[in-house]
Amino acid sequence: MGYTLEALAALVDGQVSGDQHCIVGNVASIESAREGDICFFNDIKLRKNLLTCQASAVIVKQMDVEYCPGNALVVADPYVSYAKIAALLTQTEPEPARVDSLAVVDPSCQIAKTAIIHAHCVIERNVRIGERVHLGPGCFVGEGSVIGDDTWIAPNVTLYHDVIIGERGIIHAGVVLGSDGFGLANDKGRWIKVPQLGKVCVGDDVEIGANCAIDRGTLEDTVIADGVKIDNLVHIAHNVKVGAHSAIAGCVGVAGSSTIGAHCTFGGMAGVAGHVHIADNAHFTGMAMVTKSITEPGIYSSGLPAEPNRRWRKNVVRFRQLEKLENRLRQLEDQLKNTKG
Amino acid sequence: MGYTLEALAALVDGQVSGDQHCIVGNVASIESAREGDICFFNDIKLRKNLLTCQASAVIVKQMDVEYCPGNALVVADPYVSYAKIAALLTQTEPEPARVDSLAVVDPSCQIAKTAIIHAHCVIERNVRIGERVHLGPGCFVGEGSVIGDDTWIAPNVTLYHDVIIGERGIIHAGVVLGSDGFGLANDKGRWIKVPQLGKVCVGDDVEIGANCAIDRGTLEDTVIADGVKIDNLVHIAHNVKVGAHSAIAGCVGVAGSSTIGAHCTFGGMAGVAGHVHIADNAHFTGMAMVTKSITEPGIYSSGLPAEPNRRWRKNVVRFRQLEKLENRLRQLEDQLKNTKG
Amino acid sequence: MGYTLEALAALVDGQVSGDQHCIVGNVASIESAREGDICFFNDIKLRKNLLTCQASAVIVKQMDVEYCPGNALVVADPYVSYAKIAALLTQTEPEPARVDSLAVVDPSCQIAKTAIIHAHCVIERNVRIGERVHLGPGCFVGEGSVIGDDTWIAPNVTLYHDVIIGERGIIHAGVVLGSDGFGLANDKGRWIKVPQLGKVCVGDDVEIGANCAIDRGTLEDTVIADGVKIDNLVHIAHNVKVGAHSAIAGCVGVAGSSTIGAHCTFGGMAGVAGHVHIADNAHFTGMAMVTKSITEPGIYSSGLPAEPNRRWRKNVVRFRQLEKLENRLRQLEDQLKNTKG
Repeated sequence: MGYTLEALAALVDGQVSGDQHCIVGNVASIESAREGDICFFNDIKLRKNLLTCQASAVIVKQMDVEYCPGNALVVADPYVSYAKIAALLTQTEPEPARVDSLAVVDPSCQIAKTAIIHAHCVIERNVRIGERVHLGPGCFVGEGSVIGDDTWIAPNVTLYHDVIIGERGIIHAGVVLGSDGFGLANDKGRWIKVPQLGKVCVGDDVEIGANCAIDRGTLEDTVIADGVKIDNLVHIAHNVKVGAHSAIAGCVGVAGSSTIGAHCTFGGMAGVAGHVHIADNAHFTGMAMVTKSITEPGIYSSGLPAEPNRRWRKNVVRFRQLEKLENRLRQLEDQLKNTKG
Repeated sequence: MGYTLEALAALVDGQVSGDQHCIVGNVASIESAREGDICFFNDIKLRKNLLTCQASAVIVKQMDVEYCPGNALVVADPYVSYAKIAALLTQTEPEPARVDSLAVVDPSCQIAKTAIIHAHCVIERNVRIGERVHLGPGCFVGEGSVIGDDTWIAPNVTLYHDVIIGERGIIHAGVVLGSDGFGLANDKGRWIKVPQLGKVCVGDDVEIGANCAIDRGTLEDTVIADGVKIDNLVHIAHNVKVGAHSAIAGCVGVAGSSTIGAHCTFGGMAGVAGHVHIADNAHFTGMAMVTKSITEPGIYSSGLPAEPNRRWRKNVVRFRQLEKLENRLRQLEDQLKNTKG
Repeated sequence: MGYTLEALAALVDGQVSGDQHCIVGNVASIESAREGDICFFNDIKLRKNLLTCQASAVIVKQMDVEYCPGNALVVADPYVSYAKIAALLTQTEPEPARVDSLAVVDPSCQIAKTAIIHAHCVIERNVRIGERVHLGPGCFVGEGSVIGDDTWIAPNVTLYHDVIIGERGIIHAGVVLGSDGFGLANDKGRWIKVPQLGKVCVGDDVEIGANCAIDRGTLEDTVIADGVKIDNLVHIAHNVKVGAHSAIAGCVGVAGSSTIGAHCTFGGMAGVAGHVHIADNAHFTGMAMVTKSITEPGIYSSGLPAEPNRRWRKNVVRFRQLEKLENRLRQLEDQLKNTKG
């Protein structure tokens, strides 16, 4: 199955340069593409690759089209257009709807007729599951949870009670939503559990990566807004709010009750302290340590890049002497002032 | 269902200010509370909230009771009292005991009559499961493991063989206890596995957050003592001992054979190197990097808080020049000494 | 069941000092060993332990044999020899091959007759499972995946479609292989998913720790080469290549499209940025932040070890003033130059 460049151009609001009846059926990288493939080109430093590219067509910006010896699809943003075309070309036939005979579904649940519930799922009381939802094998859905239309859930996902997921979501394997927040009161040296009574509310078009854990709120809800994308092994603590269209890379941790604005991005392993507020459009590089509220949009960073161990050891010693170093400098300054005086 | 303030006062050793026959049935936050709710107040900066609070009663310290226009429950520690009252008010009817017909339980196991074993669990030989234990759907319990009375285990938890869990524990979804430690011997460039033969021993009243992984010991056991609380996505390596009533926040990693004292706390994403010993009552802020033994109680920190990317880049360069900077300073000092001499 | 020292010496290419007919049946630590046990000794600082050791034999280097009052097995590398002997002594009877009646296996799959498929597994179309493979309860294996001979997979593991695992692998509980990479294109503020079409290819003799997540490639494959060992809670992003015999400790994250050489090691919680290349034999200490390509073998580090909170606070302030401090120093230098001139 394939599409003409003309059809793809209509999909992505682009212009065909070359043969608009050319048919492509697969996506590929610029290096591995062959006849019948379409690929995208974005990096002017690699323009020479265009010359040797074997693809039937390349998705390019206007400025690069002159370097394409073959067919091109000229668009404003090749990567975005590629994403849309790749989604079209790799579409698969939907599985037939069914509730597997080895799934356990409480009779009180409302399961849409078009949903697919795989084997070894357990769905507790009063769960509502929308149209065309896919629930992979071995999932658990606790009492009162809701899964919106067209949400796809991988195998071995655990949703506790009162977890609300919007439409068109993607929840990867091993994800846990709605576990208890880390709410503890210290009673003379012993920790007492503070009941965690809020929900987890996940908006529409949210993707959550493998083995993430998102805790339910203490009294209010933990909220993941529309369009948020979360990578693998991310921890989101109780009461956190993540604003719309923010993206959080792998191994990030967000501590309790923090609020993240819309359109933020977090590099991998960044950490956000509890009870901070992060403005819209704030961006954090990998391993950034966010200890205070961020009130302005911008790029924020911390951490020290790895260096040869021997040099690092010396610099660590110097770091610990910074206070002393400053004192020595101040003494010199005073001394010189006196000398001059 | 509700309780009088008088009854709650008896539970938490408090005094009622106002109507001791007032009945409360739910907990809420001070901002969202309504008639019939009880909330707690702890933060003198927010005393004005007491004036507008709609709760039927507020749990407060003696010093704050004069700011309460309505009923108050006066206690030494409002948060601790709140935790106890919330636990009482949110108690749910226990599920009826049963071994689900879709669970696979080896006939050699000792399963208490009051235990609940959900569908799709697999319980191997010689496992002992105590009174009122809850094992959620999809759990695996390996040979010889023991789960103490009143321990609640979420769905999709994996306990390898010889994992011993005490009483009143809470194990969240996706937890893995007893996986092999990362024990490797390097044989001329190839890693050879060192068999991991110890147990995982978890004490009483321990809570372990979603998707944590705790490895079994190599020859001795990995030990989590009584009252320890562990947040989500924490990694505890082989042979580690965590002392009683310590609390470990999300994404912390503790490397092999380290010993953590009692009553310690770890902020999120802190890391503990292997083979270190940490004294009782040591506290670590988030992302702290613990590379050496800590012999004194106290608060320990490391890491650099995120700052605007541009400033960070400059400071990173300076950090790498610290050695040189110190040399330059020393030269100036010498020079000045000579000048003076 | 036991082995004579003579037999063990043959296994590890060692020499017996003492009674070569002595039979040992178990491994133990040097402190806890008793009659019938064998232990290893590696640390000359603890030579006094040899005097009190109750083991029937100790595995030692030539230089330590004179300190052993009893039987010794003299080898080049006691830890490697111990690993081999421990593997032999702790061998267990293999489980009988079977496909559990509660497993769901698509008829198109090729399952070796000697494989063990436990209850509640789901194996989709066209999966190939090799000889003596062990698949624990609750595992999912997606369409077209391949598991090589003698690979052991723990319970509750999720393999998406087209995940290729070599021979003699060990995959711990909760692992997810083949989840979608974090590929997103930003279309005027909204994230569009980029289809993730590559495979995950895992070589022979690879061990992957509990709750790890390894994403499939975008167009090419994510590759874990032969002999790689990965600890718990490690995140490997799409398109990453990990070279042969590298070892990655717990909670490490490797961002997309990075290439790691052979024989590298990563301490716990180290982070590798995207699109970097790391040479063979590069070693990173715990929490190292790898932001650039590493072209030379060696040891690399970053991060600041934890120190008392009060001192840390001061040093953080100084760090942020490094730029100013350098300026002040430069002024002094200029001033002194002028003074001298």
